[in-house]
Amino acid sequence: MTRLKMGMVGGGIGSFIGDVHRKAASIDGLIDLVCGAFSSNEEKSIASAEALGIPQKRAYGSFEQMILEEAKLPEDERMDFVAIVTPNHVHFPPAKMALEHGFHVICDKPLTLTLDEAIELEKIVNSSGKVFALTHNYTGYPMVKQARAMIAKGDLGVIRKINVQYLQGWLATAVEKTGQKQAAWRVDPKKSGIGGALGDIGTHAENLAEYITGIQIEELAADVTAFGEGRVLDDDGNILLRFENGAKGTMTFSQIATGEENNLGIAVYGTKGSIEWYQENPNELIARWLDKPKQIFTPGGNGSYPEASDYVRIPAGHPEGYLEGFATIYRSFAKELQQINSGDTASTLPDFPTVKDGVRGMKFIYAAVESSNNNATWTKI
Amino acid sequence: MTRLKMGMVGGGIGSFIGDVHRKAASIDGLIDLVCGAFSSNEEKSIASAEALGIPQKRAYGSFEQMILEEAKLPEDERMDFVAIVTPNHVHFPPAKMALEHGFHVICDKPLTLTLDEAIELEKIVNSSGKVFALTHNYTGYPMVKQARAMIAKGDLGVIRKINVQYLQGWLATAVEKTGQKQAAWRVDPKKSGIGGALGDIGTHAENLAEYITGIQIEELAADVTAFGEGRVLDDDGNILLRFENGAKGTMTFSQIATGEENNLGIAVYGTKGSIEWYQENPNELIARWLDKPKQIFTPGGNGSYPEASDYVRIPAGHPEGYLEGFATIYRSFAKELQQINSGDTASTLPDFPTVKDGVRGMKFIYAAVESSNNNATWTKI
Amino acid sequence: MTRLKMGMVGGGIGSFIGDVHRKAASIDGLIDLVCGAFSSNEEKSIASAEALGIPQKRAYGSFEQMILEEAKLPEDERMDFVAIVTPNHVHFPPAKMALEHGFHVICDKPLTLTLDEAIELEKIVNSSGKVFALTHNYTGYPMVKQARAMIAKGDLGVIRKINVQYLQGWLATAVEKTGQKQAAWRVDPKKSGIGGALGDIGTHAENLAEYITGIQIEELAADVTAFGEGRVLDDDGNILLRFENGAKGTMTFSQIATGEENNLGIAVYGTKGSIEWYQENPNELIARWLDKPKQIFTPGGNGSYPEASDYVRIPAGHPEGYLEGFATIYRSFAKELQQINSGDTASTLPDFPTVKDGVRGMKFIYAAVESSNNNATWTKI
Amino acid sequence: MTRLKMGMVGGGIGSFIGDVHRKAASIDGLIDLVCGAFSSNEEKSIASAEALGIPQKRAYGSFEQMILEEAKLPEDERMDFVAIVTPNHVHFPPAKMALEHGFHVICDKPLTLTLDEAIELEKIVNSSGKVFALTHNYTGYPMVKQARAMIAKGDLGVIRKINVQYLQGWLATAVEKTGQKQAAWRVDPKKSGIGGALGDIGTHAENLAEYITGIQIEELAADVTAFGEGRVLDDDGNILLRFENGAKGTMTFSQIATGEENNLGIAVYGTKGSIEWYQENPNELIARWLDKPKQIFTPGGNGSYPEASDYVRIPAGHPEGYLEGFATIYRSFAKELQQINSGDTASTLPDFPTVKDGVRGMKFIYAAVESSNNNATWTKI
Repeated sequence: MTRLKMGMVGGGIGSFIGDVHRKAASIDGLIDLVCGAFSSNEEKSIASAEALGIPQKRAYGSFEQMILEEAKLPEDERMDFVAIVTPNHVHFPPAKMALEHGFHVICDKPLTLTLDEAIELEKIVNSSGKVFALTHNYTGYPMVKQARAMIAKGDLGVIRKINVQYLQGWLATAVEKTGQKQAAWRVDPKKSGIGGALGDIGTHAENLAEYITGIQIEELAADVTAFGEGRVLDDDGNILLRFENGAKGTMTFSQIATGEENNLGIAVYGTKGSIEWYQENPNELIARWLDKPKQIFTPGGNGSYPEASDYVRIPAGHPEGYLEGFATIYRSFAKELQQINSGDTASTLPDFPTVKDGVRGMKFIYAAVESSNNNATWTKI
Repeated sequence: MTRLKMGMVGGGIGSFIGDVHRKAASIDGLIDLVCGAFSSNEEKSIASAEALGIPQKRAYGSFEQMILEEAKLPEDERMDFVAIVTPNHVHFPPAKMALEHGFHVICDKPLTLTLDEAIELEKIVNSSGKVFALTHNYTGYPMVKQARAMIAKGDLGVIRKINVQYLQGWLATAVEKTGQKQAAWRVDPKKSGIGGALGDIGTHAENLAEYITGIQIEELAADVTAFGEGRVLDDDGNILLRFENGAKGTMTFSQIATGEENNLGIAVYGTKGSIEWYQENPNELIARWLDKPKQIFTPGGNGSYPEASDYVRIPAGHPEGYLEGFATIYRSFAKELQQINSGDTASTLPDFPTVKDGVRGMKFIYAAVESSNNNATWTKI
Repeated sequence: MTRLKMGMVGGGIGSFIGDVHRKAASIDGLIDLVCGAFSSNEEKSIASAEALGIPQKRAYGSFEQMILEEAKLPEDERMDFVAIVTPNHVHFPPAKMALEHGFHVICDKPLTLTLDEAIELEKIVNSSGKVFALTHNYTGYPMVKQARAMIAKGDLGVIRKINVQYLQGWLATAVEKTGQKQAAWRVDPKKSGIGGALGDIGTHAENLAEYITGIQIEELAADVTAFGEGRVLDDDGNILLRFENGAKGTMTFSQIATGEENNLGIAVYGTKGSIEWYQENPNELIARWLDKPKQIFTPGGNGSYPEASDYVRIPAGHPEGYLEGFATIYRSFAKELQQINSGDTASTLPDFPTVKDGVRGMKFIYAAVESSNNNATWTKI
Repeated sequence: MTRLKMGMVGGGIGSFIGDVHRKAASIDGLIDLVCGAFSSNEEKSIASAEALGIPQKRAYGSFEQMILEEAKLPEDERMDFVAIVTPNHVHFPPAKMALEHGFHVICDKPLTLTLDEAIELEKIVNSSGKVFALTHNYTGYPMVKQARAMIAKGDLGVIRKINVQYLQGWLATAVEKTGQKQAAWRVDPKKSGIGGALGDIGTHAENLAEYITGIQIEELAADVTAFGEGRVLDDDGNILLRFENGAKGTMTFSQIATGEENNLGIAVYGTKGSIEWYQENPNELIARWLDKPKQIFTPGGNGSYPEASDYVRIPAGHPEGYLEGFATIYRSFAKELQQINSGDTASTLPDFPTVKDGVRGMKFIYAAVESSNNNATWTKI
């Protein structure tokens, strides 16, 4: 088995999500970080490389340079794929260029700055023949996979109600004015796009609901708000949902929900049973039934389906967390690349979020903004 | 101190809510049940009286008979007030007649069958000079009162987001067709009114949100549904909320949320802190803060405000439940009557839900139905 | 159905446990409080009676007076039974006198001040032909009964491990020196007996473990401590347990466990499954299994045995608390008296704790003190 | 920064703890696995190396071979340290040999097969000048470090009561007879030593209690049992604890606690406050106080001390799990080696468990077995 070589765009030392991607990529021992355009400032990029134990010659001052230079290296030396961990406005350009130069891509969400970019990127991916993964990392949790499997097998019967929430409080005050970089770009439409919290966390909620249930949102009525003084992008929102199968539900999300840390949660109700799951306590899946006591499923615990327990790294009772869920996306992506590298064809249903999920997320953002601008009129995704 | 004498309309042996009212009325030793029109069938009424240890002569075959006969008894013998525990369509007639014959009234929610009745009843109450209480029992929980006090004192800052839910699963199947009486009248518009789950539990959610925050819902966009085959009244709904102070939120309620028992819950987010509370675990109030660790308040525990701890019957750590919360409404009602009986004037802000809350609940039902009929158009309450 | 008439010894206005007994006795509408020796100070007793709506003539200045006077009243007027809610040293005298004058007795725990008294009281009860109940109230919780039923039916297999705890923190500081009456008598061996926390809460833990499992503690090795400065009675203890069937376990109890409110809990492990229950969250029973997911049982919820659901007053999801559990003891006691009053014989296995349980509790206290005095040597109960 | 090179003893593909060590070592990007004696069967060792992406020439058939061959390699190529992940009886020999050949060592717990080995190993470590870390991984959780910091700063006042538990159920049936390798060696005294569950999990509980409180157990009274038919080593135990400062407590541990997964937990009570923590929900630390509401601390959340938050990899609300806690031991070990490699002296109080902790764990096992053999007589550690 040959380990895969990763090049990174963004993620200089001190960044939040870059470090998450690196740790997630390394947990399972399948991937080595070999190069990076960690910053658009070459000095900073080199400093980051040094701190990460990467030779200076493979620290680049721009993603363009990285892609061009790496492409020149011998096949067994050059990077296999690019990990894009920059703010939203720097997703499309490096993704497009990497794919066009023959590199696979794994990219943070939301997919792009605009819906147009997203649609174009989907075409580029399809014509490139390369693999593209989107890190909707919450789908990597074993209990999310257990819920998905239970619903797919019909354990819950026909799904009728879906409530999803993503509540954070870190923008409850104007932290973007205090020099907090994570906040600064997120409230800037030039870097975030037309959605604020919508893009940052609403898309996770949308993706989670559709991933777990296998049912798409058909239309929505959204009431999104910028509570923070001077903010132009939403930092809070409430949405009525109607699903393609007739199910109905709500989404509520916020980055001004004071005191909340990272409270992504979902409840799905079917005719025979229901499930409930919260990201902050990810190793418990609550199931309720018409005629049986409430059950608590755990990763690898009694009653786990293989669809979930196959993703568990350690015995039941040994909690796995956010990084492991994230790592599961990287592992599945890596296995897909190994499969392809060994001469097999690409999977038709790969085991990670793809550019399709990314386009859907962008459509969700656009539909929600449009609906909200029309005073919560029903709007198709 | 003289104990108060209660006459009951409805609540024959075997009824759910009648028994709840009786137990709630007796916990604090302030009230004695002395008579009842427990059933419109006189024989059944007498059988109920016998089982309850009430003399046969004070078991009546109709509320009209009870009111007329009791009015003839000497003052120190006749009932002081009427408790109405019948289905919705039998709220207005006995309430009107009792008030007009000089009896105080305590009545189950929602207030009446129709909004017109509600408005008329408010007038009757006001002109009667009698006390009228509505058993929105969930406001009786100490932790609900703690949350209300914290918000009133400004501990949470300016309220910006309010999410409330009331989830039950007992109508997930067509139990109304199995002879289940509780279900049968609730799905019948002649007995329930224009709201199904809306009236039965949605009004509790509305009342709880407004009671805890002291902020009224200004307008709503509702999407209510009758999922159960053949049902004409809603058994599920999702509502966007806008509050008078600019706060926004969601309400989701259901009686087809399979496996849920009685999951009433609320989360309120302010600029400085937030609270979260669930009825099934009523002795915990979760508080989150901008800059302090999460706290868990308990009835009578450290940090309780007098506004809450005054309602606690037993030391911290000894859980009180649904009946105690319900009893708190009865106790406050009884104390009001004792105050009046001792010659004092009635309270201007009585410590229990009143006919005003009942009218508001009816307006909520009507606004939600209207909004939903108009495809979730924003509708003022 | 005739309601039963209760006379109370102790429990003047302001007492903790007297008020609990009164509320517990009244919830189910089977019992009326008709008289009391609420205080050994006659004036205070009268004041209490007045506050409770009891005629002055039936407020007595001593239990002796109450028993003698009530015995003279006509049968349909005099009290049916005596409720003893005084500190431990005033359990035996009124119990003995009441029984000998033909009154049934319900008494708070622990049974008596000394083991000798306990053994003598058992003889008196047996020869009196009267009913004696001991308020080990925690056995009244539906989920305790569910656990007991599951174990009795063999659902858990052979029991091998039993851990029980009762943790409070209210004596973490020297509150007995601040005029707190509840604390003052509990730390006084003349009023409490040889056990401090041992008698006050350790006996509850012992009773709960034996009630739930149906298995008796055979021997114990106890290490009890008086942490509070100047205290002569234990306020904390840790005990190794060996049960008659070969099971082993631990008990830990404390009244100096800072911040704990009333944390009684138990875990029982068998060869096929296990259960876990906590008094502060009494409406959940956790069950774990060899080969099935963890389950959560609720009162009246799916999977409840009749042995538990028969004790539930309201539908699943409507929490019952401490008072309801306590009331269940009173209700069972009342039904036993009604059965006897109607001419039936007394139950051989009555549905409430009896003098036998009380003697056992006293033996537990004495064994634990003896073991601890011998540096935790194994001591038979 | 140069990454460190790790050689592994044990941990062939399919092993539980070997894989854990590898993942833990790789999360933070400081360590590369470069060689291994993954099995005493050379073919299996080579197969494991291949699966792990390690060149065949660095797959060894014995730890002796690995140590001798690696020692011959150039300094910048050979392994820096040995990770020992074998059953207990293969801890001492490779540790001794590695240290004597100039390699640092990180080793799984318990330290050795016998106490004599442990004492000898401590001498070898001390005279070697090399670094030795023991993977008591549970000390790596941020909330464990928060609890430790709170106690060290005196937030809880004087510690008076310490209860610790470690409950598993995986040996509730005779899985060792089904070919389960993990079980087979753990029940074999030749491979496990004189303690069964005592060594496997009891030592974790002992270490956790002493690490969090900074207080040593002085003496204990142990009642350990082999419930499993035919087992010679304990699979369950209950212990009374007395600490050097006068605190008292209990330990209960089991591998036959049916349905328990990995329930390590601790509660510590001081004069001013108390804490409670459970490994299965590791991102919550419960704190209770004399006069403030209960608090819940989270990693990196409000109120975290730097002593805890310095160990958090991702923002509050993003759960970290078992692997991250384990990785923290590896990271601290790696930083110590980097510090030494850069010419600094070794830390006098290194930030990871050392051989001293290992010797203490062995003394704990021996004291507990001795006490239990003497019918739970108090025995000094």
